[in-house]
Parts: sequence; structure tokens; C-alpha cells
Amino acid sequence: MADWSAQQYLKFEDERTRPSRDLLAQIPLAAPRKAVDIGCGPGNSTELLVQRWSNAEIMGIDTSADMLRQARERLPKQTFVEANVAHWVPPANTDVLFANAIFQWVPDHLRQLQRLLGALPAGGALAAQMPDNLDEPSHVMMREVAHAGPWRETLADAARARDVLPKPGAYYDALRPLCQRIEIWHTIYNHVLADAAAIVEWVKGTGLKPFVDPLEPAERKEFIREYTARVAAAYPAQVDGKVILRFPRFFVVAVK
Amino acid sequence: MADWSAQQYLKFEDERTRPSRDLLAQIPLAAPRKAVDIGCGPGNSTELLVQRWSNAEIMGIDTSADMLRQARERLPKQTFVEANVAHWVPPANTDVLFANAIFQWVPDHLRQLQRLLGALPAGGALAAQMPDNLDEPSHVMMREVAHAGPWRETLADAARARDVLPKPGAYYDALRPLCQRIEIWHTIYNHVLADAAAIVEWVKGTGLKPFVDPLEPAERKEFIREYTARVAAAYPAQVDGKVILRFPRFFVVAVK
Repeated sequence: MADWSAQQYLKFEDERTRPSRDLLAQIPLAAPRKAVDIGCGPGNSTELLVQRWSNAEIMGIDTSADMLRQARERLPKQTFVEANVAHWVPPANTDVLFANAIFQWVPDHLRQLQRLLGALPAGGALAAQMPDNLDEPSHVMMREVAHAGPWRETLADAARARDVLPKPGAYYDALRPLCQRIEIWHTIYNHVLADAAAIVEWVKGTGLKPFVDPLEPAERKEFIREYTARVAAAYPAQVDGKVILRFPRFFVVAVK
Repeated sequence: MADWSAQQYLKFEDERTRPSRDLLAQIPLAAPRKAVDIGCGPGNSTELLVQRWSNAEIMGIDTSADMLRQARERLPKQTFVEANVAHWVPPANTDVLFANAIFQWVPDHLRQLQRLLGALPAGGALAAQMPDNLDEPSHVMMREVAHAGPWRETLADAARARDVLPKPGAYYDALRPLCQRIEIWHTIYNHVLADAAAIVEWVKGTGLKPFVDPLEPAERKEFIREYTARVAAAYPAQVDGKVILRFPRFFVVAVK
């Protein structure tokens, strides 16, 4: 095969950044003055913004001091600020608000998206991606295990950490009157992982936290054992022994 | 089935090219020698291939003489050949097979995808997108109207023109042993259209054809009237009076 581009190939290898790349690809701004990565984490998504808009001022905000430290190490030329988006106002000349996998944790996020879109200048873009996987077996089974075990009382509120996302039509009705153009879609990714334990590892960093964080170590271990058994039954091995984690994600890009 | 109406299809060109663009974006080849647009239609997707790989030989195949005529007018420098993919073999040096919204019409398409992937050189890519909307109200209601009217006998086989797509895991199991890398996903687009009549216009160019083509003009008119009434009930107006057509599409990109 002639002219194989190793770099291009590598770009496609990192499937964890694909939702960020898919979101970024639908923002139709060629040269924003300032772009803010809301909930920037350790800066992986911020780096994509820097690559795309090399002449723009790129800034990241997050609530975690540890994440911000990592982001500053990764991108020493960019500005990272500790802030909670629920009480945050975009600085002057902000043309892009980019929010990858953060608004599912923000209470009443539809009103927050309205507020932030309202704060942008004409032509500015608000782009958000959220996991929409609460009805997937991986997440249904967290609630089942929480409900069925001796930790039932302790975990009574765990499922409330994240709201079910409104339907696309609700985002349309809330944001359409505030913008000139809006695109709304879901993408359902299929992540190929080694086995059920790898699925559990995957969700441990995010969706499983509200379920296991409140538990004592012995209970936590038992919860994870029971949960892993259910995951193994719900995600059977494919032809090569691996498992497929179906992962629906919601996207909205509004241009004011 | 009557010849595809190129004019009808092109009415929605902008909305309809996003799936092509999304499919193309996931093909990790920087410089293929030859790329073939399978089911090229009037050449809109072929044009995307020409834009991305300006140094490659780009070719289109289709079964419709009308579509091929339009494609040749649009892209006079490219080669367009009348062929049915079910009996077609990729020419030498073909590094990319691109198939947007065609394999849903090909009987036993999973085996055809296996055959075509098998025919590629190492490093070659097979990329396909298919509508996966047979369970959407727009398509459920075609079958309901077909079943409920005086045309029931005539349309007994209409629903069989397209098979229900296998699950992502079935594509994985069929293609994974033949390739080094595979990505499988769904994207559910939300197309904003003027009203229910616009939804009917949209499907007239594709999914509705097997239902209305066999009917006499008077019955066809009555079928469309009844179908439009049901569409209007199932797709209520949004805040701005428009309707949202939810449209799930399946994608697979395999690199050999």
C-alpha cells in the first residue's frame, strides 16, 4: 500500500478522543478569537482545539485542581482556570464554547446551555457532547445491583447523580430561538474491549463512581464482583473473544 | 422498481451529504491509488472522494443509467460504469471501496461486504453506510398503510425490498477476521424539515418507492394522502413550526 500515513493512522487509533473530534468537526468557525474548553480535564480535548485553531486564544476551565495541574503541564502556553460552569460567564470575545462530556453532571443543564448561548456574540458557537447511556445494560445493571444488595439504603440517591437527557426536540425548542443554525445528533459508538472486566474498568472512571464511592472497601469489592458478573452475562464474547461496549452519545452544535 | 429519480434525490443534497462526509472522515488512508464509489448516484458522494483524494483515480458504479448520466455531467473527468455491485469485482489497485446508502438494497449484503473486503489489497479500506430506519415511525407507517388499504395484495412484498440490518456484533464477527482494524457505529441524525409533506417528499426518493411504484396513479395518490396524515400525527411541530425527522444510519469502516 503506497503512501501510508503513520501519523494519520495514529490519529484514528485513539478512540477515546473520537467524540471530541466528531464534535469539533461540526463547528463551522474557521478562526474564532477565543475558544473555551469547558470541563477541560487533563487537557486532551483542549489540545484538539489548539491544533485546529492555532491562532486563537484557547482557554480551559474545570472544577478539579488536579486536572488543571495536568492540563497546564500538557499545554503550558494555554490558560487554565478553576471554575464551575454553573456560575461562570464567558470572557469577552469568546467565539466558541466547547464542552465534551461535562454537562451531564450539571444540574438543569438545558437552562445552562441557553444562558451560555445567550452570552456569546453573534456568530459564536456552543458545542456540547454528553453520554446518553443510562438505558444501556452497563448502566441499567449498576442500578439493579444498587437496588438488590445490602447497600440499598446507602445508594438510594446514587442514580440521581445524572439526569436522563431530554429528547433532541427539547434541545431544539430550547436553543433554536436563540441561534441561527443548530445541529443535533446521537452517535452510538461500539468500543471493542478485552472482556467484561475491561468494561467495568471503563465505567469506574465515570458512571460507576456515584455507586461505589459511598461504599466501604469490603462492600465496594462485593458490589464490583456482582456488577462484573452481570456485565459478563450481558456482553457476550465476539468471534475474537473480545466484547463490544455500545456507547450512545448526544451532540448539539448551535451557532448564534 | 422504476429508475431512481435523480432530481428528487438532489433536492435534499446538503442534508444527505453529511453521512457521506462522516463516513469519508473515518477512512484512514492518505493517498489511495484508486477509490470506487459504489452506488454513486448522481455523483455527489463521488465529488467528495475527488476533493479528498485529488491524486487518486476515482471511479463510480451504479445500476441506474439516469444517475450515471448526471454523474458524468457533474464530474466529466471521472469514470462512471453501469454495474450491479452484487456481480462486480473491484479493478486492480483499488485501495478504497466507498458505499453510501446502497448495501441496504443488496441481497445478503453481509456476505457481499465479506467478498469485497476479501478482494482488496492489504491496507485497503471498505467503508459503507446504510440507513437503519425501518423501525422509525416514517417507515413503520409505510407498512401500516400498505397493510390497511385496498392495495394490500399488490404491496404484499413491498416491505421485503429492504432487509432489517443485522446488529453491529454480526458485522464485527463477519468482517473482523478479514481485516486489521474495524470501526462500527450508528449516527442518528435529526433533519429539520418544513412539515409532514416535506418528510413524505424526502422518503419518496428512496424508502417509499417500493410502496408507491406498484400502484396505479389514483391509488398512489390515496396511499400518499393516508401516509401523509399519519406522518403529520407522528411528527409534531417544534417551537418554530418545523418538524424533526429522526434518521438513524449505520456505518462500518474496515481496513484490511
